[in-house]
Amino acid sequence: MVSMAHVEFRTSPAKYRHWRLSTDGPVATLAMDVDEQGGLVPGYELKLNSYDLGVDIELYDAVQRLRFEHPEVKAVVMTSGKEKIFCAGANIRMLAASAHSWKVNFCKFTNETRNGIEDATANSGQVYLAALNGTASGGGYELALACDRILLVDDRSSVVSLPELPLLGVLPGTGGLTRVVDKRHVRRDLADYFSTKSEGIGGKKAVGWKLVDEVVPRVRWQEVISERARDSASSAARLPGGPAIALTELAKERADDSVTYAHVSASLDRDRAVAEITVTGPSAGAPASMADVRAEGQAFWSLAVARELDDLILDLRTNETEIGTWVFKTVGDASRVLAYDELLLANYESDWLAREIVLYWKRTLKRLDVTSRSLIALIEPGSCFAGSLLELALAADRSYMLFGVFEDVNADAAPAAVTVGQANLGPLPMGNGLTRLQTRFLGDAESLAAAEKSAGSPLEAEEAEKLGLVTFAPDDIDWDEEVRIAVEERASFSPDALTGLEANYRFAGPETVETKIFGRLTAWQNWIFYRPNASGPDGALRAYGTGKRADFDRKRV
Amino acid sequence: MVSMAHVEFRTSPAKYRHWRLSTDGPVATLAMDVDEQGGLVPGYELKLNSYDLGVDIELYDAVQRLRFEHPEVKAVVMTSGKEKIFCAGANIRMLAASAHSWKVNFCKFTNETRNGIEDATANSGQVYLAALNGTASGGGYELALACDRILLVDDRSSVVSLPELPLLGVLPGTGGLTRVVDKRHVRRDLADYFSTKSEGIGGKKAVGWKLVDEVVPRVRWQEVISERARDSASSAARLPGGPAIALTELAKERADDSVTYAHVSASLDRDRAVAEITVTGPSAGAPASMADVRAEGQAFWSLAVARELDDLILDLRTNETEIGTWVFKTVGDASRVLAYDELLLANYESDWLAREIVLYWKRTLKRLDVTSRSLIALIEPGSCFAGSLLELALAADRSYMLFGVFEDVNADAAPAAVTVGQANLGPLPMGNGLTRLQTRFLGDAESLAAAEKSAGSPLEAEEAEKLGLVTFAPDDIDWDEEVRIAVEERASFSPDALTGLEANYRFAGPETVETKIFGRLTAWQNWIFYRPNASGPDGALRAYGTGKRADFDRKRV
Repeated sequence: MVSMAHVEFRTSPAKYRHWRLSTDGPVATLAMDVDEQGGLVPGYELKLNSYDLGVDIELYDAVQRLRFEHPEVKAVVMTSGKEKIFCAGANIRMLAASAHSWKVNFCKFTNETRNGIEDATANSGQVYLAALNGTASGGGYELALACDRILLVDDRSSVVSLPELPLLGVLPGTGGLTRVVDKRHVRRDLADYFSTKSEGIGGKKAVGWKLVDEVVPRVRWQEVISERARDSASSAARLPGGPAIALTELAKERADDSVTYAHVSASLDRDRAVAEITVTGPSAGAPASMADVRAEGQAFWSLAVARELDDLILDLRTNETEIGTWVFKTVGDASRVLAYDELLLANYESDWLAREIVLYWKRTLKRLDVTSRSLIALIEPGSCFAGSLLELALAADRSYMLFGVFEDVNADAAPAAVTVGQANLGPLPMGNGLTRLQTRFLGDAESLAAAEKSAGSPLEAEEAEKLGLVTFAPDDIDWDEEVRIAVEERASFSPDALTGLEANYRFAGPETVETKIFGRLTAWQNWIFYRPNASGPDGALRAYGTGKRADFDRKRV
Repeated sequence: MVSMAHVEFRTSPAKYRHWRLSTDGPVATLAMDVDEQGGLVPGYELKLNSYDLGVDIELYDAVQRLRFEHPEVKAVVMTSGKEKIFCAGANIRMLAASAHSWKVNFCKFTNETRNGIEDATANSGQVYLAALNGTASGGGYELALACDRILLVDDRSSVVSLPELPLLGVLPGTGGLTRVVDKRHVRRDLADYFSTKSEGIGGKKAVGWKLVDEVVPRVRWQEVISERARDSASSAARLPGGPAIALTELAKERADDSVTYAHVSASLDRDRAVAEITVTGPSAGAPASMADVRAEGQAFWSLAVARELDDLILDLRTNETEIGTWVFKTVGDASRVLAYDELLLANYESDWLAREIVLYWKRTLKRLDVTSRSLIALIEPGSCFAGSLLELALAADRSYMLFGVFEDVNADAAPAAVTVGQANLGPLPMGNGLTRLQTRFLGDAESLAAAEKSAGSPLEAEEAEKLGLVTFAPDDIDWDEEVRIAVEERASFSPDALTGLEANYRFAGPETVETKIFGRLTAWQNWIFYRPNASGPDGALRAYGTGKRADFDRKRV
């Protein structure tokens, strides 16, 4: 079993072992050149540009930096630094040796990064091109599928393939099946055939079946890739931007029972299996203009909090699997939070940086939505659940808001209030394409309208509960008991059933490629990963490469 | 482990042990009164109106008969024949003792029956009312959720509940989670709370949270139920119909390696893990009118084939889990198939029986779509893949159509042809709301239009392949080898991975409550069922009722 050392998600190009990021005006090139000996944990070699979580952590970092540190980049060429192989997908030995929870968590993160690539293409005007200068198999092809356009070298040997089913007895679990039929519109019977042929498909047939957009002879490869990249860059809708915002290393203190950043902190209570996460609002009023925001750079409150939350979610998800409940609190001045939001949203359509920060919030909140932890928001006096921070409470499975004040603490405190803001009305949609308010009030237009109409007004507990913005509003006398029961109860339930419950309830409403990947595809893959036919001693994952055939229980379930 | 005896799905009211079906003019009452000692297999008692597959087989039969044998019925009251309890859901001892494949198959069938109840309400003008004269918990409440309206007796003790998560460590797996938020629009945080409270919710709170539509004091119970049933019946859009079509016992020969009906037969090859299913077209031309159809009754080809296919799918799914591939063939005259379709579709809007037969085809084809077997259609000379029978090929994961003829068999035969008919253009949608042609050509309006435009013209292999209606069109020389490889390959793959692959590729396009139930919810439930936290020796399913607490691995996955 691969040992699960503490995983750190903070990195930077200077530390990369597996990727080379270079730019040439509006075109960046992200070249995958995996260090075989650079696995995150011992026990496997990353041959043929296969990847593990460590490789993907660098990719995620590069995708993020391209947005903030490279405002001039409008097209990103994703290619391989190796000959004949683009990428062989997730490393099989790593998968075979990993615990189930590690496999599932790894797939989730890689999926989020690929969705982030599509988000950059769709919303940030950074268009990704997959330049497959060699075979892209399994997760390698799935990485290509996340790009706007796929070019494959036509050399009679390079192909695209999804060999997971025939070779490993599992699914292509990084969005491949969904993107093949729902994004690229490959016909389902051809997709079926393709996904059972481990040898893959290249050349004109790959184009005819819509598996790739174009095949290019090797002699014209560089020329055509440059041309396509220039074309993409010239038509990309990236807002004029700059100067670059450097994402220097996030300051973070990690102790055994706490994680502390500048504005976000978490205290971990292992006995009760709960993390209490506190987000602190801005310590000063919002800057007057985006020019001032640029001057603050990565220290700007909204950007800093997004980075901190993002890192915290990844850290706890990966390193603290037994902490099953996350309790969110906020502390600060709600009007300041709203003013920060307002500055960004007023400039969303015209200012590159404003847009990037809002999009980063959107992605971070989506990461929370697909996190397999129970989320509870506690709304107390002194909190600032407003606008972007109110989204934390709306993302929660349940929220508790104190009616009145804690008499023993401060009988003169102002009661807790929540405030709907512009940030709740559109710019931060969930994966299902709806706002969290729309999902909350699905099929109830009247309640939705009432909640939206309240925008700008601080709502105390009674009103917030009446509008359906919080779940429960106990008073001082009941608060401790109700909250305690909620948290303890959660710890007493089956963690698997909670994961399934939350995955179903959080995504009411329409489905998209994204929700299908996290709902339908991921759930099937989790099941398949867990079955002995894949992961048992004679399962396909363990048999791979040993010369032995997998021994399947042939029952169809 | 519950032994898996051969399960027979054919039954009739005279044989029911668990349900009483009665009618009073336009109102039918379906009273659940489960015989504790009437379990399908030994090893558990069906206390508190809990159910197993046998109970649900009777329910399915009753729902079907209400459509065909009771054209006068416009409202169906689903209630309990016991005091104080409506239904306690699926029997826990049965679940705890069952093999994983049995649990999954059981859930699938119960889901299909509940979807059929919704289909009757939506499309057949038979509106179902849940009259909860006692507590409805778990699957009992999920049965109510499939009804158009839920009434709960207000007696201070009767509640609705989903106690699966807190008591059993699994999900409500029969559509409950999906219907709570996506159909009834219960707010997701309230739904979360509700699904963690094993004691359930009744009275006004149940109405306020939208869990039920109405609570009724016991003194007014009969009166209000009658009134609501009459109201539903009077506003139901059931087409005027009659006389009743009796569904007498389907003639069926079941041998170890074959299943034979009048028009459908299957030969089972256990070594190759394949069933070859042959559907024979009409032996005569279509009747001139629906009056003639009525005279033929259940012997009418379209109705008979639907019944036979339906029973065969259920039989093979349940009793032949190691037969992983179903190969579909047809034999007969395509123009007759089209004429039968045409008669039904011309009368779909005005004639009760025509509509019922078409709806039955729709449901049967949907059953095929969610069947966890690889489906392959073989289109050969003498076949009649046209209209409703072409849907079998369009439902398949892959189809092979012979180019030319089998020279050795009959060199003068007419080459195989497929014909798109009206039945392929709308009346038989999949669970995703699209036709199989629309799903096939998702995002490719041009190909869809070309295929639809071909309606009425028999297409030989070259043209059918060009239009994308078949996957491959090998000639006589390649046919045997290609088909053999396809079938043998399928048997060599992981059955789990195939199930996941097919579940993802078959449902490209939009999602609905129905596809969410079979895709998202079911996949999570399959995973949860399989995990030791539910089904292991110390898991919650096994611990239930023993007084011991389940011992959970607390890792969140």
